[in-house]
Amino acid sequence: MSNSRLKSISNTLKESGLDALALNPSPSLLYATGLHFHLMERPVLALFAADGRIALVLPELEVAKLSNLSYELKAFPYNEEPTTWGGVFKEAVEFLGLDGKKIGVEPLAMRIVEYRFLESAALEASFPDATEAIASLRIVKDEQEIASMRKAAEIAQNALEATLPMIKIGVSEKEIASELVMQLLKHGSESPFPFQPIVSGGPNGANPHASPSERKLQEGDLLVIDWGANSNDYVSDITRTFAIGEIDDEYRKIHEIVQAANAAGRAAAKPGLPASVVDDAARKVVDDSGYGKYFNHRTGHGIGMEGHEAPYMRAGNDRILEVGMAFTVEPGIYLPNRNGVRVEDDMVITEGGAESLSTLPREIRVLG
Amino acid sequence: MSNSRLKSISNTLKESGLDALALNPSPSLLYATGLHFHLMERPVLALFAADGRIALVLPELEVAKLSNLSYELKAFPYNEEPTTWGGVFKEAVEFLGLDGKKIGVEPLAMRIVEYRFLESAALEASFPDATEAIASLRIVKDEQEIASMRKAAEIAQNALEATLPMIKIGVSEKEIASELVMQLLKHGSESPFPFQPIVSGGPNGANPHASPSERKLQEGDLLVIDWGANSNDYVSDITRTFAIGEIDDEYRKIHEIVQAANAAGRAAAKPGLPASVVDDAARKVVDDSGYGKYFNHRTGHGIGMEGHEAPYMRAGNDRILEVGMAFTVEPGIYLPNRNGVRVEDDMVITEGGAESLSTLPREIRVLG
Repeated sequence: MSNSRLKSISNTLKESGLDALALNPSPSLLYATGLHFHLMERPVLALFAADGRIALVLPELEVAKLSNLSYELKAFPYNEEPTTWGGVFKEAVEFLGLDGKKIGVEPLAMRIVEYRFLESAALEASFPDATEAIASLRIVKDEQEIASMRKAAEIAQNALEATLPMIKIGVSEKEIASELVMQLLKHGSESPFPFQPIVSGGPNGANPHASPSERKLQEGDLLVIDWGANSNDYVSDITRTFAIGEIDDEYRKIHEIVQAANAAGRAAAKPGLPASVVDDAARKVVDDSGYGKYFNHRTGHGIGMEGHEAPYMRAGNDRILEVGMAFTVEPGIYLPNRNGVRVEDDMVITEGGAESLSTLPREIRVLG
Repeated sequence: MSNSRLKSISNTLKESGLDALALNPSPSLLYATGLHFHLMERPVLALFAADGRIALVLPELEVAKLSNLSYELKAFPYNEEPTTWGGVFKEAVEFLGLDGKKIGVEPLAMRIVEYRFLESAALEASFPDATEAIASLRIVKDEQEIASMRKAAEIAQNALEATLPMIKIGVSEKEIASELVMQLLKHGSESPFPFQPIVSGGPNGANPHASPSERKLQEGDLLVIDWGANSNDYVSDITRTFAIGEIDDEYRKIHEIVQAANAAGRAAAKPGLPASVVDDAARKVVDDSGYGKYFNHRTGHGIGMEGHEAPYMRAGNDRILEVGMAFTVEPGIYLPNRNGVRVEDDMVITEGGAESLSTLPREIRVLG
C-alpha cells in the first residue's frame, strides 16, 4: 500500500497518544497494508508501532502474500500447532517493545481470539479503543477512492437496470435477488459484495433488514431493493422502491414523503456543518407528514471500504462534515405488516455541498 | 429453530460448568436460534442461561425478525443513540441474573465490541472459552444437516462442470472465478458462499490461499480451483487441479502423489480413531515421495455451517471421530514460484469408515 498511509498511521498514533495500533483482518488492515486476509480460525494480527515499524503475525501458509511489498514489515509466521501460537505473538510484541504500552484496538473488527493472544503477549499493556483514530485516517476519501466509489455506484445501477425486466407479479424475492447478484458480477462488481441484496415485497418491506424470502410479488405491493457493488475494494449502497402494478394511494403518498426526505437530507449536507443536520433535515420531512414514528432508524452511515463506517448521520452526531467524506442518505417509512419505502443515495461532500454518486431516478417506478 | 437444540445447549452448559453462553452474530447463533443476524456496528448479543431462558440484545429495527419464533426469548431492543446501549446490555444480564457467573464466549466469533459491553454489564462475571462446548453441540451432523451438505457439494460440482468449457489458455483467473460464481448461483447456491472461489494458475497455485488475479492461463500451467456452495446454510469446500495443455512430467508426478495422499487420508477415516490418523495417512504418502516439505498445511478441517470448524485434521489432534462428523481431506504440494496441486473432498464419518460427499473425478483433467 502507499507509504503515505503508513506515515499517516504513525502521525495519528502520536497525536492520539497511542504507542501502537493492532489490526486483525479488516478493511482497516487492507487500507493500511494493501493485504487481503480473511477472518479464520488461524489468527492474523498486524502491529503498527508509532515509530513506523510493523510486525505481522500470520500462518506460515499465508507468507507468500508478503512478496513484493513496497514497505518494510517483519513477519512472524506460525505453524499448524496451535499451542505454539502464543509464543509467536509474544515475539512480535517484544520485537516492537510494546509490553506496558498503549496499543489501540478496533472493537468492531477484532475478535476475542486475537485480543486474548495480544493480551497474553503484552500483560502490562492497555488496549484503548482506537475507532476514532482509525476513522480519522479513513473518513476523508481522496480522488482515487471517490473514483472507485463512483464506479461501484455505476456498476450497481447498471446491474439493477438489467434486473428490472424480470421483476413481475409471481416472481419471488429470492429469484430477484439471485438475478441481481448475477447482474452485479456481469457488470463488473468484485467479490465480496458489501452486503447481500435486500429484496423485500409487501409486508416484508416493513422490516428494513429482511432477507430475501420465497414470497412472490403480488399486485399492489411496494418492492424495496437495497443493493451495492464492490469496485477495487470500495463499495456502493443504494435503495430504490418500486410499485408492483396498481398501489394504494397511501403507499404512493409515503413514497412521495420519503423521496422528499431523501432530497432534504441530500440538500442539507455541506462542509462545516455537523453530520446531525442531514438526519434533522430528512427526519423533519417525515415528522411533519405525521409518519415520524414509522421512520425508526438513523438517516445514513458513512461508506467507503465498508458498507457501514463513520460518519453516522444521526441525531446528536456533532462530527463536522469535510470535503471528501462519503455517506448514505436513506430515510424510510415502514408500516408494520403492510409495506415499506426507502430511498437511498451515496453522497460525497464537495466544496459547495454534496454530490450524489448514485443517479438512478428516485420517483416510484411501476413494474410488473 | 428446533427446541431440541436449545435443550442441548442447556444440557451442555450444565455439563461444562457454565452458567450461560453468549453468542454474537455467527453460525453458532444461527444454529441455536435459526436467526440470521450480521456483524455490524450495531452489536447483537444472545445470552443463553443454563436454565433455558434466553435474552437477546438487538437494535430496535431488527425486532421484526423475532416474529413467529417457536420458543421463548426475551428481547432487549435498543435505539439509535449509542450512549444508551450499555444500559440495555445491563438489563439483559440482570434479567438472567448473570453477574458474577461463568458466561462462556466464542473467541473466534465474538468481537471486542460485544465483549466489552458484556464485561461492563457483568463486572463480576468470568468469560471462559466455550469453543469446545459449542463444538460438541455442532460437530456431529444429523441426517438433515448431511442432506444439506450433500446438496451443497452437488451444486458446487454442477457449477464447476458448467464452468470448465470456458477455461483455456489466455483466460484470466478473475474471469474464471467470476464465471464460477455465476454458475454457483445458477445451480442453486444460496448466499453467502462459504468463501470466494480460489482460482490459481501456474506460480499463483503455489500460494494455497491466493486471490484470483488478472494473470492469464498459459500452456503448461497447473490450475488449482478451490470452491464451495451454500445450501440451506450448510456448505461444501472442494478442490480439483487441472492441466492447461501439455505439462511437465514433474507436475504430473506431484498430482499423482497428492491424489494418492487424498485417497489415503479418506481411507484412514473411521469412527473410533483420532482425527490425527487422517493427517498421518495423507502426509505419509507425500513424505515418502520426498515432497514432504512442500505440503505446508494440515490435511483438513471440519465443515458444516462454517467452511472451517472442528474437527481439525492435523498431527496430534486426538479428538475421536464419530459417525456424523464431517471434514475435508485436502493434501497439497506447493512448489514455490512454479506450481501447486491440491485435491480436496468433503467427508462424513459412517459406521464403516467415511463417505465422500464430493464425487468429481480426482485424476488430473487436461483443459484448454
